[in-house]
Amino acid sequence: MAIVVSGSRAHSRLLGELLASRLNLRFTVVEGKRFPDGELYVRVTSSVKGEDVIVVQSMEPPQNDALVELMLLVDALVEAGAGDITLFAPYLPYARQDRVFLAGEPVSVRAILKTLHGLGVRRLIVVEAHSERALSHFPGYVVNVNPLPYMAKLSGLGGDVLVVSPDLGGISRARGVAEALGARSSYIAKVRDRVTGVISMDAGSLDPRGLDVVVVDDILSTGGTLAEASRILLERGARSVQVIVVHNLNLPGALERVLGAGVSRITTSNTLPQPDHQALKVIDVTPLVAGEIARWVS
Amino acid sequence: MAIVVSGSRAHSRLLGELLASRLNLRFTVVEGKRFPDGELYVRVTSSVKGEDVIVVQSMEPPQNDALVELMLLVDALVEAGAGDITLFAPYLPYARQDRVFLAGEPVSVRAILKTLHGLGVRRLIVVEAHSERALSHFPGYVVNVNPLPYMAKLSGLGGDVLVVSPDLGGISRARGVAEALGARSSYIAKVRDRVTGVISMDAGSLDPRGLDVVVVDDILSTGGTLAEASRILLERGARSVQVIVVHNLNLPGALERVLGAGVSRITTSNTLPQPDHQALKVIDVTPLVAGEIARWVS
Repeated sequence: MAIVVSGSRAHSRLLGELLASRLNLRFTVVEGKRFPDGELYVRVTSSVKGEDVIVVQSMEPPQNDALVELMLLVDALVEAGAGDITLFAPYLPYARQDRVFLAGEPVSVRAILKTLHGLGVRRLIVVEAHSERALSHFPGYVVNVNPLPYMAKLSGLGGDVLVVSPDLGGISRARGVAEALGARSSYIAKVRDRVTGVISMDAGSLDPRGLDVVVVDDILSTGGTLAEASRILLERGARSVQVIVVHNLNLPGALERVLGAGVSRITTSNTLPQPDHQALKVIDVTPLVAGEIARWVS
Repeated sequence: MAIVVSGSRAHSRLLGELLASRLNLRFTVVEGKRFPDGELYVRVTSSVKGEDVIVVQSMEPPQNDALVELMLLVDALVEAGAGDITLFAPYLPYARQDRVFLAGEPVSVRAILKTLHGLGVRRLIVVEAHSERALSHFPGYVVNVNPLPYMAKLSGLGGDVLVVSPDLGGISRARGVAEALGARSSYIAKVRDRVTGVISMDAGSLDPRGLDVVVVDDILSTGGTLAEASRILLERGARSVQVIVVHNLNLPGALERVLGAGVSRITTSNTLPQPDHQALKVIDVTPLVAGEIARWVS
């Protein structure tokens, strides 16, 4: 029997409880605090000796605090004699820096994943990790859950929509959703200048006139990309535009920016803590994660 | 020829410049920024291919941001083909959690040091790392610089003082200073309840009547320990009490707390950024660090 151990963040606890309940596993949350000087402290208060552990850590900003707490937590589990350690990272930070774009840059996600493996994480399960390349830097066993088809179906969409990726790199995401719905897919090419950060978008000959469009992406950060793509689609005559995005970082003003572009609804998941908002539909992805874990945990 | 590369913090840059200048080495500071979502970015803009590198990272709060930037920086240096990587960490965070005090705790400093080694740091030079045990968790070559005798001499003290450790664990620090000055040393036993955090102090038969006392410690965090020790010494008739402490974290109210206990002067080092304060004397420790590095860098 494995045990689910969540980090000290409220959302880690929530996801850990959901997961443990679905898998019918024991659940414990670590004791966590911050010392007056800003250093973190964690303590595993249940016995984990000889037991396989599924660690659940939510990585909303401040991401670095979540990462360091996770490092300490894994060290504590190894110290306490835990068996195999699996990390469920609903949202993996630093995944977008999955290669060197300009000479002198790190592969940030490699530094993170090598570190977690080096400390004792043997298996990693993440939801939509931006790219397979990002996950290739983890030296252990990896599962990358793609929740988009599931989310698209649960949001009530059918085969009559046009599924659009706002980025060339996201084309397979849009295709996967389109396939699940029996719909067509297309894309807008986003070009980001790596130095200035300025984004330009090229919709080519895309013709959404009279169509209900679903824009599909992995991350809602500032909302700039999704807002711009939606604006272009509406300008070109789309009847409606809605968005499905796996991870909503819930940065200040981001939801408003996307909705301000004319988007009628945003569907996201609970990989990160979500606000209450009438235009935001949140889908629980722990059933998918539990399904994956059930394959290799007894 | 090695090259000194500092992290993006202002104090990292300052210490890196001091060190490079003393060692007559090339110096470069990384480009660093924070993305809108809170993730950090670093980039090494000078060529380091084939060159040994001395990384300088100042770790004042927020420590976790400093640690993650350091992880990314080391990854970037390895990616760029750097030779041997030495880390100069003027202040090593998490060093006080150098063992398991209560079952279920991590050895936090082990998690940090294993991580840095795993990413490519081969040699580590730190100033007063709290305990030799803390550094024993680094699997590479380590130098722990003890700046206290140097600081005591530069602060103009002589053999007529009584050197006091405010903690049993710091007795060898006080002895080292006393030896350097030709003075006597003693201690107060500090007992910290690991659960409640409550500290009690036992000065035993210590008799400081009529003496000028120097309290010596490694870290000034909230100032509670140093203030309490100083108060006891003055109550027992010490003529004056001053403090020498290697690392001043400069937390809000801490200096005032120590000075409010009747301490006449605090001498600290520049391992962390320091404020301007008339009762605070700051000693540059980079000459000591440069001396150590000069032994193994050509």
